[in-house]
This record gives sequence, C-alpha cells and structure tokens, in this order.
Amino acid sequence: MPQVKLVEIGPRDGFQSVNEFIPTSLKTAVIDRLVEAGLRKIQITSFVSPKAIPQMKGARQVSEYVLTKYPAVEPFALVPNLTGAKMAVAAGLKEIGPVMSLSESHNMANIRRSVEESLEETKAIRQQFPDTKITQDIATVFGCPFEGRMRVEPLLELLGRLHAIGIRDFTLCDTIGVAYPKQVTEVFQKATAAFPDCGFGAHIHDTRNMGILNSYLALQNGASSVQTAIGGLGGCPFAPGASGNTATEDISYMLEREGYATGLDMDKLVATARFLQANVAGNYSGHHAAISAEFREMGMPA
Amino acid sequence: MPQVKLVEIGPRDGFQSVNEFIPTSLKTAVIDRLVEAGLRKIQITSFVSPKAIPQMKGARQVSEYVLTKYPAVEPFALVPNLTGAKMAVAAGLKEIGPVMSLSESHNMANIRRSVEESLEETKAIRQQFPDTKITQDIATVFGCPFEGRMRVEPLLELLGRLHAIGIRDFTLCDTIGVAYPKQVTEVFQKATAAFPDCGFGAHIHDTRNMGILNSYLALQNGASSVQTAIGGLGGCPFAPGASGNTATEDISYMLEREGYATGLDMDKLVATARFLQANVAGNYSGHHAAISAEFREMGMPA
Repeated sequence: MPQVKLVEIGPRDGFQSVNEFIPTSLKTAVIDRLVEAGLRKIQITSFVSPKAIPQMKGARQVSEYVLTKYPAVEPFALVPNLTGAKMAVAAGLKEIGPVMSLSESHNMANIRRSVEESLEETKAIRQQFPDTKITQDIATVFGCPFEGRMRVEPLLELLGRLHAIGIRDFTLCDTIGVAYPKQVTEVFQKATAAFPDCGFGAHIHDTRNMGILNSYLALQNGASSVQTAIGGLGGCPFAPGASGNTATEDISYMLEREGYATGLDMDKLVATARFLQANVAGNYSGHHAAISAEFREMGMPA
Repeated sequence: MPQVKLVEIGPRDGFQSVNEFIPTSLKTAVIDRLVEAGLRKIQITSFVSPKAIPQMKGARQVSEYVLTKYPAVEPFALVPNLTGAKMAVAAGLKEIGPVMSLSESHNMANIRRSVEESLEETKAIRQQFPDTKITQDIATVFGCPFEGRMRVEPLLELLGRLHAIGIRDFTLCDTIGVAYPKQVTEVFQKATAAFPDCGFGAHIHDTRNMGILNSYLALQNGASSVQTAIGGLGGCPFAPGASGNTATEDISYMLEREGYATGLDMDKLVATARFLQANVAGNYSGHHAAISAEFREMGMPA
C-alpha cells in the first residue's frame, strides 16, 4: 500500500479562524481525539504575539501537554519569526514551521515583514537551531488577496533562496483557495523537479470547493503530504473571506478508497469532527455525515 | 478553447429532492435564470407518476413553457418507462432520458421493474420514437445502497445490450456519491474504449465531497459532458441519505480556470444559486459565495 502523510492542522489553522477563545482544555481535548483517531503529525499551535492572534494563547501549555502525553506524535508549530521559533524550541518542540508569503503585500499584512526580512528570519532560525526540523510554509503560492494570481517563476526563485539557506522541507499553501488543477499540477511538478532533494507538502483551502481535487492533484504530482483540518474548520483572518480548510475526514475517505495506507480510524475522525462542531462555532467544509458508521448501517457502501 | 458540455439537472434531480411542492411558476423562474446564465442543455423535469413523485407534477406545463420561450435551449426529461416517454414526446420534447439502474435492487426500488424489464422499456421507446434523441441514464454505476460497491464488467455488459438496442448516448451516474478516483477513471476509460461510437456523460453526487474531483476525472478520461445542479441542490429520495449534487457554479468555476469554454456567466450562476436557496429549502453543496462578484470586489482573484 502506498503511504501518504496527512498533516493535521486543525489545532492551528482551524482554531485560528475562530473568533471566540477556545479554552486550552478544549484544545487539548480535540488533540486527544485526533491522536486517538490515528493522526501522528499535528500542527498543534503557533507561537505568535497574543496581541496579534489571541486565539493562540496557551501555545506553551498545549505543546507541553502533547510532548508529555504522546511521545509517538510529531507535533510542530507555526512560527512567524525568530522570536516565535525561540518560544517553540523552549517549549520543547523538535519541529517548527516558519511562515512567509510569496506575495509582498500578504507577507506584510500577515506577519508585518517584507519577504526579504522573512528570509532573514528563516536564515537566523536555521542558524540558531541546527537540530530543529524546519518545514517552511509558503503562503499565497497560487494567489494573493491583494496581488491576484501568482506565477510559478517567483516561487521557484524563492525556493532557491530558501534552499541556499539550508531549508529542505516546504509546504506550498493555497491560502485563499484559488488554485486550479493545471496550476497545482504545474507548481508541484516544477518545484519537485527543480529541488529533488526537498520534500513538498500541500495546504489547499476549500474556499471554492476545490480542496479535495487540488489536494489529490498535488499528491499525484509530487507532494509527499497534504495538510488538512478536522471538520474542514479554517480560514485565514488576514485574507478576507478565505474560509474553510480541506477536511481531514473527507480526504482520508478518498485516500482510503484509493488504496493508500493512512493509519486513520474513519469513525473516530468523524466523531472528532462532530465533537468539534458541537463545541466550536466556525466555518466547516467537511461532508463527514456520509462517511459515518450510521450511514454504513443504513446499507451505504464505504 | 476546449469545449465541455455542462448539463443542468437542477430542475429535475435538484427539485426532486425537495419535499415541499415547488410551484410551477417558481420552477420556470429558476429555468429562466439558468437560461439567462448561459445554460443550453437542461433536464427540465421528469415524466413520472405524480403518486410516486408529487414534485414532478406540472411536467407538461414546464416543457411547453421552455419549448415555447427558448428555441435555442435543448430541454430533455427523465422518463422511467414507455408511458413516461409517450408523455414527454406528446409534450413536444425532442430528447428524453430513460433511466435504469445497474443494480437490480435499486432499479426495483427506484422504478419498480427488474433490469430486464427496463431494457425492454428502453427497446420499446427506441422503436416507437425513432426520431427522438435518447440518452440513457444508468444509476448506481459505482455503488448501490442495497448491493454495495459495483464492478465495471456488469456495466460493460449492460452497455452492450443497450448498444444492441440502438442506444448511443449514456449518462453514468454515481447515484449515492460513493465513486472514487481510480474507479471513475477505470469506468470512463473502459466504457469509452469499448464503445467508441457512443457519447458518455457523468453524473456524480457530492455526498462525500468527491463531486468536483470525480467529475473532473470523468472529463479527463473520456466523458464529453457532466451533469450538475445549480447550488448543488439534490439527492435521490430512494437512496437513503444520498444528498447533494455537484454544484453547477463550482464546476463552472473550475472549468473556466482550466481554460474550457463553458459559455456561462458566473455572476448569473451565483445569483441563480442564491435565488434558489432563498426560495427552496433543501440540501445544497455549492460554495458559491467565494466565486461571487462581491468577493472579487474585496480584491480576491478569480
């Protein structure tokens, strides 16, 4: 069976889209269920200024909780800069995800830095933490809410500069859900061909109902992992109207049918999506009802 | 620009999923908007017993309305049997879509006939109406709520028998939304290879969030058209829990980005989906908000 890594980002990207503060105990209760459902690589939080994103308060407690309770889980956190990276490493995390955007204006809106400054931050992070795994998030790869459609050439140039700094793992993000099949195919084919010593993940928002299709095509064209959020909870507060991640349970259903070994328990994923929906008000794009045990009890094939 | 035919089935499959009767004037008001948005091939109704499906009362009036008002539109109707075909032809329609299921038990539940009896009906329809275009709907091609996962060999056999009767156009339907990428690819590749003189359309329900992906793959593997419903309204009342068609506006967005000539006005499609949602309570699976003009005014790229 071919392997594919589903990277769960609900506790970061999903929660970040929610206005009302989610208590830390509820956050860890969701993570408990995600681990129980079989997820092993989880973006558990981000280390950002609580003024900028109050929802991420308690990042250290969440990190310590996961590190103490689940030695088999690979938790990682998003960090916008060196300060965040220091906090994440101090909390004990072995992997971090610095973020920058391909487009200047989104980078400025999102993390108040130029792309050049963000490159310097990643360089400093790489130098200060040589033993920490770094997976660089690149936002607005396919389109930017301020600059419109993005091209692949500037991406390849940015990847080259990050490669020169020593980065070998990347997540290419469709922050506002405007990617389309030919674009996803081109971006992943060219990125993986140009940087064969690197790993590429896909993070596709479901804003325009293209999340499953584009995630599928990313995997078909060289991506080794896809990021998804349980229930499809998500959005980017700095990209107006960009709501909805691709749902972990829906992608997982598709991958299982396709013959991938995901190691996930579908019923537990569905139960987790329902638990989240019952406890946290937000934008959900998953269709999990139809992959539930009750549905199968009605005679519906899996 | 490559052409692709979007076949609008909202006025039949969408409306059929709605419990409360939709007045004929509201039905034709939706059709007006669909035509105005650029749709030219529309399944406008079905000619069935009003006892079996009360929602389809007024099929003749709807047909006469469209035939009189829109000579450039190609309207067609679903018919479950010869009686329905006679009514459709009497109403003036030049194209009809007899329906049968690949699985015996769904055929019996849906139209109270064995597959053998349905073949006889299609044969009689073909013989009695040699000048009427016939596009045969085949339901439960990918899975059946009573018999589970379906295989491609019995489908090819059924296609062969229909071909021998003189049928050359088919719609392969994922009635309960259980198709997956490898299956869709195999079915369309094998069907188009085995019957090169035939046309194949795809009708994929979005029950498990695979509607866009599987419709895309059908087109990549030989389908010449896809059936969609405005707003994603839909479901099959005889397949428990099978809600949600693939949304016309979402597929149209994807196809436009891919460079297909659809001839559709996206803003008018979105307005029609909203009009329908505001006036008819049902299951909708479309994400149309994010492809609207307001969204673009917020600076979001198309």
